[in-house]
Amino acid sequence: MSTLSLPPRLLMGPGPINCYPRVLSAMATQLVGQYDPVMTGYMNEVMALYRRVFNTSNQHTVLIDGTSRAGIEAVLVSALEPGDCVLVPVFGRFGHLLAEICERAGAKVHTIEVPWGEVFDPQQIEEAVQRVRPKLLAIVQGDTSTTMLQPLAQLGEICRRYDVIFYSDATASIGGNAFDTDTWQLDAVSIGLQKCLGGPSGSAPITLSPRYVELVRKRHHVEAGIKDSHHHGASGSRIQSNYFDIPMILDYWGEERLNHHTEAASMLFCARECAITLLDEGKDAVIARHKLAGDAMLAGIQALGLQPFGNLQHKMNNVVGVTIPHDVDGEAIRHTLLHRFNIEIGTSFGPLKGKIWRIGTMGYNARQDAVLHTLQSLETVLRQQRGPITGTPGAGVDAALAVYDENRQ
Amino acid sequence: MSTLSLPPRLLMGPGPINCYPRVLSAMATQLVGQYDPVMTGYMNEVMALYRRVFNTSNQHTVLIDGTSRAGIEAVLVSALEPGDCVLVPVFGRFGHLLAEICERAGAKVHTIEVPWGEVFDPQQIEEAVQRVRPKLLAIVQGDTSTTMLQPLAQLGEICRRYDVIFYSDATASIGGNAFDTDTWQLDAVSIGLQKCLGGPSGSAPITLSPRYVELVRKRHHVEAGIKDSHHHGASGSRIQSNYFDIPMILDYWGEERLNHHTEAASMLFCARECAITLLDEGKDAVIARHKLAGDAMLAGIQALGLQPFGNLQHKMNNVVGVTIPHDVDGEAIRHTLLHRFNIEIGTSFGPLKGKIWRIGTMGYNARQDAVLHTLQSLETVLRQQRGPITGTPGAGVDAALAVYDENRQ
Repeated sequence: MSTLSLPPRLLMGPGPINCYPRVLSAMATQLVGQYDPVMTGYMNEVMALYRRVFNTSNQHTVLIDGTSRAGIEAVLVSALEPGDCVLVPVFGRFGHLLAEICERAGAKVHTIEVPWGEVFDPQQIEEAVQRVRPKLLAIVQGDTSTTMLQPLAQLGEICRRYDVIFYSDATASIGGNAFDTDTWQLDAVSIGLQKCLGGPSGSAPITLSPRYVELVRKRHHVEAGIKDSHHHGASGSRIQSNYFDIPMILDYWGEERLNHHTEAASMLFCARECAITLLDEGKDAVIARHKLAGDAMLAGIQALGLQPFGNLQHKMNNVVGVTIPHDVDGEAIRHTLLHRFNIEIGTSFGPLKGKIWRIGTMGYNARQDAVLHTLQSLETVLRQQRGPITGTPGAGVDAALAVYDENRQ
Repeated sequence: MSTLSLPPRLLMGPGPINCYPRVLSAMATQLVGQYDPVMTGYMNEVMALYRRVFNTSNQHTVLIDGTSRAGIEAVLVSALEPGDCVLVPVFGRFGHLLAEICERAGAKVHTIEVPWGEVFDPQQIEEAVQRVRPKLLAIVQGDTSTTMLQPLAQLGEICRRYDVIFYSDATASIGGNAFDTDTWQLDAVSIGLQKCLGGPSGSAPITLSPRYVELVRKRHHVEAGIKDSHHHGASGSRIQSNYFDIPMILDYWGEERLNHHTEAASMLFCARECAITLLDEGKDAVIARHKLAGDAMLAGIQALGLQPFGNLQHKMNNVVGVTIPHDVDGEAIRHTLLHRFNIEIGTSFGPLKGKIWRIGTMGYNARQDAVLHTLQSLETVLRQQRGPITGTPGAGVDAALAVYDENRQ
């Protein structure tokens, strides 16, 4: 049977993106056993590394073995009991996802919404908190569906004031935009590797505050098959998922080392390398690199006469929405970019389906050459499809080069 | 920061085990986009490959992105509604796990048990089915906690007769023991990669019969954030997990290609390579290799004067339980094997904690040299701890060599 043979795509969509080569190499490492001190040592190291990624001193910083939404579901289903009240401010697809997962956990979900392309004022959220008095506030930081970045800095204080558990998913934004778990007083955060951290999908780091852990530990149970006389019995209502039972998962990552799942070792090596890659370069430097690439891409898009989508003041550094011009077949452009130039840009869904492209500059691909090739290629395929664009030929790539040049000075 | 540096352990426990080198290499492959035709092509190929692994013509043969118990939970939580009646025959730890996951899904769970080290007669199961009249029967094929292999061949017919959905988890056994989804009339099967398939933990292939799919499709919903006018509304009761919502997962793997999670591409490449490695060598040849290695290990253990655990007629090919002699410190033996010989053998939990070791010969490690080194090393550490064993020096390794020699003729 054939060996894997993949084309060398440049992935400039909203993620997944190309992995850092060293992250790919890490996954090819031969395993050791699940309870080998070398393995548990690496688990502890991963906890320490992700504390730095999250900017937190939370002891309970671990991986959920699954894609990003596995982390989301673990955080929500472990905290929520049927009838609990939750507030979800929705500014794109992933807000709807948070709401849906809370509903499936039996919670009473209240949503507030702003139009896609906008974010919330803290006042709007405080008003809703006051009205709804939720047990938990769930909100994404960056919603790739709209490219918007919700400011979170003032929400933690509001949540403390009303005794609300504050949870955010930062999958789309972490690494490319500032994130500050402890300063922002977050109780739970979930992320994935496949955006600005430059890894593949398949591991979901989470961090949990002592307040959150105290809450979910009230629902602590030990699995029947591994129970022995040393283990105390059940307490509190049972979490509806075994796989996402955070008290059990913490027993596995903690000193108890009680067996739950078998840790996905290759994905753990991968998550470790993503964190080290980020921290070696420096968190601020990586954010600056994303900002620069994002600014250059935006300048290029505008110089090509294309309209960026949404409120640019609140755009994530790492992705831009581009309104598809009326005289252009958006899917044909994407098809040509992919099949002739080996460059992928993103489509959209829900209310934005067919209306915008999404172009990412994330992780390994938040690079000058990636930005320049994408803009040149986009100009070429636009010209091929609708004839010469208005303005100077090469205006897009030149504008991006100018952003990079300014930054050098 | 330091690069990964792992000792070259020989993993002879009940799993995870060393990966096939080609499986590790596959994970280091650079990504393409989630909806790239190359990626969806590989998804389709993986479906076809795992049909062959499972011996099935089931169209719906996909990966769940998580460890083995993610596959278990997906199958159970998608099928079960609160109040549904389930029968779980328990012959080890993983039976208890199946029961627990069903309970968390709100099912009324009936268990029957045999002592650890035994399996069920089909009559016992039929009697219970008759009494309980469950909607679903859930049973593991191989339970690594006891090393036993439950015969499944006659259970499918019983389930059809009583209109019961028949589900088995074959994580511990697949690849090393016969498994026949369609002939045995199974409606759902889940597995993992980290045993006889020679991969790491982190991807859970499942196969689903048309009957199972028809059942869960009655609970089909489309996610709010990606719904558009083409999508019909909800039907049936909502599955309590989004992540494990099989109708949604099938919409992603099927022609609809509706976004759910972002497929964990590196683990998919890995799962693909595990299947190809198995199929290239040939399923029957791989089972025979596991049988031979298991027989050689068993002969060696017995020749060392050690007692194998459980009913040997029903032992899995790929793992043996070894009663820890009374005059031996079982954990000290394991410690020395690991730290001086770089060989890992397994401990136990629940009722067998401290009573047996578990020695595996799985996947890449179902090899003559692995068996021989393990037996030699075990003899040495036993001798070091309690003085010369009774019987001929080298009796263990010689007995194993004899099994391999006989097989050559």
